[in-house]
Amino acid sequence: MDITEHGHEHVGYGGDKTQILARLRRVEGQVRGLQRMVDEDTYCIDVLTQVSAATKALESVALLLLDDHLSHCVAHAAAQGGAEGDAKIREAWAAIARLVRS
Amino acid sequence: MDITEHGHEHVGYGGDKTQILARLRRVEGQVRGLQRMVDEDTYCIDVLTQVSAATKALESVALLLLDDHLSHCVAHAAAQGGAEGDAKIREAWAAIARLVRS
Amino acid sequence: MDITEHGHEHVGYGGDKTQILARLRRVEGQVRGLQRMVDEDTYCIDVLTQVSAATKALESVALLLLDDHLSHCVAHAAAQGGAEGDAKIREAWAAIARLVRS
Amino acid sequence: MDITEHGHEHVGYGGDKTQILARLRRVEGQVRGLQRMVDEDTYCIDVLTQVSAATKALESVALLLLDDHLSHCVAHAAAQGGAEGDAKIREAWAAIARLVRS
Repeated sequence: MDITEHGHEHVGYGGDKTQILARLRRVEGQVRGLQRMVDEDTYCIDVLTQVSAATKALESVALLLLDDHLSHCVAHAAAQGGAEGDAKIREAWAAIARLVRS
Repeated sequence: MDITEHGHEHVGYGGDKTQILARLRRVEGQVRGLQRMVDEDTYCIDVLTQVSAATKALESVALLLLDDHLSHCVAHAAAQGGAEGDAKIREAWAAIARLVRS
Repeated sequence: MDITEHGHEHVGYGGDKTQILARLRRVEGQVRGLQRMVDEDTYCIDVLTQVSAATKALESVALLLLDDHLSHCVAHAAAQGGAEGDAKIREAWAAIARLVRS
Repeated sequence: MDITEHGHEHVGYGGDKTQILARLRRVEGQVRGLQRMVDEDTYCIDVLTQVSAATKALESVALLLLDDHLSHCVAHAAAQGGAEGDAKIREAWAAIARLVRS
């Protein structure tokens, strides 16, 4: 465990880092594909279907990140308890609220 | 703290129980209002606007419940650590995933 | 077709009115069940699962209403064309945007 | 108006094509930024915030595409009426349902 430049104790993304990066590269490919589709005047409904797929893929990246965060950072902070533990849980909750509303 | 019939250690909804119940009663009122609107052939767009409002209200109930759950049950289980702590975090994650996808 | 008090030409919910009302009554039952669950201190995760179910049920009511609205009101207005047709499409789009964002 | 290779009568994205492409390029930049953040072990919560922003940006692309589609393709098909008009409205509804559920 090390202290990142943002001052957070950081326990990394665990074994999921490779998987998260692979998924993000796939989302990048989908978004580039979308530009090509729009550029070539692909029928709107087909473009919309691909936008929904990219959105779902981003959502699954978010859930993977959240899984790591709860299992490592939050579990670790809560185990230590006190104000630091409470702050970490509050911070995680705010991130979840942004996801649920997005 | 007591053990509920579902075998979960339970720390309650804290001070939020009254607020959660009040919001749920308001959602019930919105859903009854929706039935009246449909029954009286209210213009679809006005009904849709009210459905969006009720959905947002339910979402805010979910976030309130999640806040209590993370601050009490999850923090408590994580502080104890071990398999029980891991299971609680996994369970919370699954509930969040259902919310994000709903 | 008749003119409603809101000044909209109204073609009703078609055969779906009964189905929409039945679904809304079911949502009302779910929301009442939620109040009972919270009142009896049901474990938060079980309450959250039921909130997700009610949210999905409301979403399906919205899609049913939208289906009727597009098939009847929008199709009718678009067939007439002109400023009225454009306004109806703009209004439907705004309602869809609220749904997608809720 | 021309017939695309997919057999759809196509009226294009109107003046929005440039704007849609610009937004998609921005989303691509956000997704590349996300890969860099994960690669450099940026704190999970900051990554999650950026995922929520990219998701919202994709959502706004979807709403822009839908706006064009309803105003052009659907309005045109509905004006012609008949089975073709009905099919276009059904197809748009299905795309909206995928968006609302994603």
